[in-house]
Amino acid sequence: MNPNQTVEDESHPSITAASRRIQCLSLHLTPLPPSQPSPQLNMLTCAKAANKLEVDKVSLSTYMRGKNRDIQEKIIEFFESRPDLQTPVGVSMNEHRELCMRQLVALVREAKIKPFRYVVDDPAKYFAITEAIGSIDVSLGIKLGVQFSLWGGSVLNLGTEKHRDKYFDGIDNLDYPGCFAMTELHHGSNVQGLQTTATFDPVTDEFIIDTPNDGAIKWWIGNASVHGKFATVFAKLILPTHDSKKVSDMGVHAFIIPIRDLNTLQTLPGIEIHDCGHKVGLNGVDNGALRFRSVRIPRDNLLNRFGDVSQDGKYTSSLPTINKRFAAMLGELVGGRVGLAYASVGFLKISVTIAVRYSLLRQQFGPPEQPEVSILDYQSQQHKLMPMLASSYAFHFATQYLVQKYSEMKKMHDEQLVADVHALSAGLKAYVTSYTAKSLSTCREACGGHGYAAVNRFGSLRNDHDIFQTFEGDNTVLMQQVAADLLKQYKDKFQGGTLSVTWNYLRESMNTYLSQPNPIIARWESADHLRDPKFQLDAFRYRTSRLLQSVAARLRKHSKTLGTFGAWNRCLNHLLLLAESHTESVILAKFIEAVHKYILNSNIFRLPCAYFLSF
Amino acid sequence: MNPNQTVEDESHPSITAASRRIQCLSLHLTPLPPSQPSPQLNMLTCAKAANKLEVDKVSLSTYMRGKNRDIQEKIIEFFESRPDLQTPVGVSMNEHRELCMRQLVALVREAKIKPFRYVVDDPAKYFAITEAIGSIDVSLGIKLGVQFSLWGGSVLNLGTEKHRDKYFDGIDNLDYPGCFAMTELHHGSNVQGLQTTATFDPVTDEFIIDTPNDGAIKWWIGNASVHGKFATVFAKLILPTHDSKKVSDMGVHAFIIPIRDLNTLQTLPGIEIHDCGHKVGLNGVDNGALRFRSVRIPRDNLLNRFGDVSQDGKYTSSLPTINKRFAAMLGELVGGRVGLAYASVGFLKISVTIAVRYSLLRQQFGPPEQPEVSILDYQSQQHKLMPMLASSYAFHFATQYLVQKYSEMKKMHDEQLVADVHALSAGLKAYVTSYTAKSLSTCREACGGHGYAAVNRFGSLRNDHDIFQTFEGDNTVLMQQVAADLLKQYKDKFQGGTLSVTWNYLRESMNTYLSQPNPIIARWESADHLRDPKFQLDAFRYRTSRLLQSVAARLRKHSKTLGTFGAWNRCLNHLLLLAESHTESVILAKFIEAVHKYILNSNIFRLPCAYFLSF
Repeated sequence: MNPNQTVEDESHPSITAASRRIQCLSLHLTPLPPSQPSPQLNMLTCAKAANKLEVDKVSLSTYMRGKNRDIQEKIIEFFESRPDLQTPVGVSMNEHRELCMRQLVALVREAKIKPFRYVVDDPAKYFAITEAIGSIDVSLGIKLGVQFSLWGGSVLNLGTEKHRDKYFDGIDNLDYPGCFAMTELHHGSNVQGLQTTATFDPVTDEFIIDTPNDGAIKWWIGNASVHGKFATVFAKLILPTHDSKKVSDMGVHAFIIPIRDLNTLQTLPGIEIHDCGHKVGLNGVDNGALRFRSVRIPRDNLLNRFGDVSQDGKYTSSLPTINKRFAAMLGELVGGRVGLAYASVGFLKISVTIAVRYSLLRQQFGPPEQPEVSILDYQSQQHKLMPMLASSYAFHFATQYLVQKYSEMKKMHDEQLVADVHALSAGLKAYVTSYTAKSLSTCREACGGHGYAAVNRFGSLRNDHDIFQTFEGDNTVLMQQVAADLLKQYKDKFQGGTLSVTWNYLRESMNTYLSQPNPIIARWESADHLRDPKFQLDAFRYRTSRLLQSVAARLRKHSKTLGTFGAWNRCLNHLLLLAESHTESVILAKFIEAVHKYILNSNIFRLPCAYFLSF
Repeated sequence: MNPNQTVEDESHPSITAASRRIQCLSLHLTPLPPSQPSPQLNMLTCAKAANKLEVDKVSLSTYMRGKNRDIQEKIIEFFESRPDLQTPVGVSMNEHRELCMRQLVALVREAKIKPFRYVVDDPAKYFAITEAIGSIDVSLGIKLGVQFSLWGGSVLNLGTEKHRDKYFDGIDNLDYPGCFAMTELHHGSNVQGLQTTATFDPVTDEFIIDTPNDGAIKWWIGNASVHGKFATVFAKLILPTHDSKKVSDMGVHAFIIPIRDLNTLQTLPGIEIHDCGHKVGLNGVDNGALRFRSVRIPRDNLLNRFGDVSQDGKYTSSLPTINKRFAAMLGELVGGRVGLAYASVGFLKISVTIAVRYSLLRQQFGPPEQPEVSILDYQSQQHKLMPMLASSYAFHFATQYLVQKYSEMKKMHDEQLVADVHALSAGLKAYVTSYTAKSLSTCREACGGHGYAAVNRFGSLRNDHDIFQTFEGDNTVLMQQVAADLLKQYKDKFQGGTLSVTWNYLRESMNTYLSQPNPIIARWESADHLRDPKFQLDAFRYRTSRLLQSVAARLRKHSKTLGTFGAWNRCLNHLLLLAESHTESVILAKFIEAVHKYILNSNIFRLPCAYFLSF
């Protein structure tokens, strides 16, 4: 199938397509038979409805939280029993940083919850812990993530047995607090552009780490300003070549660098640490900047899973190219992204719960001579909050699916699964965190003046969560990775390749949907049809297929004159829309599946799928 | 003209209308002749374009800031010269409150800028001062507004000569810091539902102020927690009736109540003050809660411009009903709303300037083997920031127009003008503050990690500005007032009444547009036509007219079964869309006017009107 045959060119739609569209649209404008009033859409006032809701809370809670409910409750109970470990409103930055460290130490040493053990072996449990911890204080959640998922995770995932043996216990029991030093002042998204160097010196069998210029200072490094004793530092590996005084750049690799004395906590020689100061939120995390001046580390400190250097300076790797090694390395770090998507849903749940509860209690205005009504009785308030409530459920199931896929990947190391989890985590992280960020603001607004009291949490949740849209991959960049993956799948399909699991529907959709007119305008159907999840999912997927096909055609056209980079940029908003549309299709599919599965076990509760469609 | 004749009923669109629409839409689908490449739309990379921009900065700045440019620069220079008066990042709440008071005192007593003098006599100058002050610290801007516009303004606008004589100097020179105590814990938006009482005691010639229950505690009162010595308190005026032991409730009135000793600052007897604590932002403002226990004040403390009580307890007013008096009182308080709309544009300007500048400097990724490009070169970044930049200009001119109308109103006291300014200020305040709030988040995101550094201001701007959407009228409530005003104008029109100045276009539009098909789909026209501001404005106004006519028909239909309150709620989102659409029409009209006027005097600069259309 040649995409140019079915997609209208941007500037010259074919007359045939135009006629077909007009015909379809005309069906829309045909008078609708008087509809039967649907019981679901009759609104009661909140006061009257209060006694009519039938929700089996226990079965729903069990279904939602699954087997990790116990550890979450243990964490909540532990912090509830310890007022000295609760973060006060208005705490200063320095106090907050120390408190966060105390909270983390208490979790591990007093509550005996050791998250590091689950990072690789039971990710679902690890993420459940971070969700509960995030509800205590988002800063604590991030501090925990820096320690166990970023610093600890880099040792486990990029290192080998010798690193695990040497560092596991210290990371696990917090004797070795550490950092993950990837981002530089001038390079955040473009990780391959990092400038820090690690030059091998065969004479001393050491790497020499250098920050060549101010733009290469490691920036925003969590745990660096106060508590970190080690850092995993990403730097270009520079090897001497034997036949001349030249060197070769082997691409970005990760190295363990001790940054503070284990006992005195003094900064080690050659290392400069600056404080990144106040941030919009997350001020319990001590972000710092690191500069290296000829810092020497043993050759063993190279995290050598994907590439190693021998004593005589020879490079070996199971992977053939710099790009492959770079991709493998980043692939191992995808857990952070999975965790952020999952945690972000947690903040959405907290926020929408506060806003819905308040909206039920708060009364303002009412019919003449009658009591004031709940503000949730207003159509505008429902419109603000109900799609958000439905989306919380939808995102919960979608990110649970992501965690499950990620756990499988950690066990199986299947290449296709790695690519699938990479794209899925990028899409869900970007989509969910953007949605939650907007929702936190909407919830504050929906709660009016009382929403502005710091004690009601919207401010700190929003400020703390805000950067979820940026770190572990800027959302706009991640969505482009999703689009790129879809285009790759699209191309592979026409070359007879296999489609990955998540994208599988595209096979069907491109064969089926695109040979038919748009399912929404194709026929005039009853309300039952419009509310049918199957139809809704069809409509979402049809949209994705159309966008994929049309952007592929546009890219092909523009790349002739603008080159690949220029064509991509010319179609950028189209690509972002494609990625968003695909991610919504995945979320809706997982939502429908989860609701269906629950309904099979229960005939009481109906999740409001329809609301999700309006977000 | 009967609206039911031209508007399709929700569920039964007429076949004729359907046919007409299909016919119009078909024009859209006709192949477009190959367009001439337009020079305006050719994008250069930022690096190449840098030398090509020709902007006459001086003439533009003079045009934008007008005659109040000098006082704004004087304020900026004063604070720049005084590092001791600059707000440090991470300042604690208590320090911030004291600093804000010092800043305000220095402004008045050292820089000799006395905003109170301009509140009534030169509002444009007053708002220009608040814009400059807000750029120093938003808390300071609000503290200033509480003192001069709310507390001071209530004395000038609701009181009479005796109040002006007694309080003017003390307010002006800050000897009398004061509060504006309207909102109660249980009543924010619904001001007529306030429960605080002021009962006249003819024996002592005093009013007795009481807080009857916890829900009636005055809440969120700025200046109350620390600095306020007086408060204008809104309470139901209760008068004894002569013939029985009954009393009559004369509705909400305003009273001046001393709350702290002028010298010792001790809280006065019968008054309880609680601190409202940390807020999401604006922590330099000391918000407090006030409870009154039989507090006695002299009869003279009634702000008696719209209603007075004689020594023997008789009520007199130039206005016949409680509702009329209430409306007159609120009408006088509209200045706060004007100020918020105006100030909000100021924060949008600051924010978009920071984001655009950073996006020019920050480089990330690029074509293969070429230097990295500015992130502003990416279509997605342009899409985020350029409509925002254009909107800053549009809002600037629209709020300048509002300030001009408000200034006329303060001079003329024309009833029609009062109603017009009321609706216009409601629409612009709600629209602009909602837009700015979203934009502040978008700007932070567009600046990535560095946008998250507190020193780069997005966090504090967002936290401080956030409540602009709520105070001085919740945006969702204000937009309903705009819709109600439009419906009133619509009704009046068909009863032969006159339309107010701002709404004047509706007369034309309802006569002209609605007898024609939608201007967008009516004909296929050239790019020149689509870019013609006249056509664009026609399209915006046509939309408003359609929404107005259709919601009027729906309200009429639903009120038969649901009553007025129920019908309004049933159509609420439709009404909000109408109000938004109308406000956009007004903004666009003022933008086009201002650009046209500037172009007449200059042929260098072209404001990007087209971008505004995409917001």
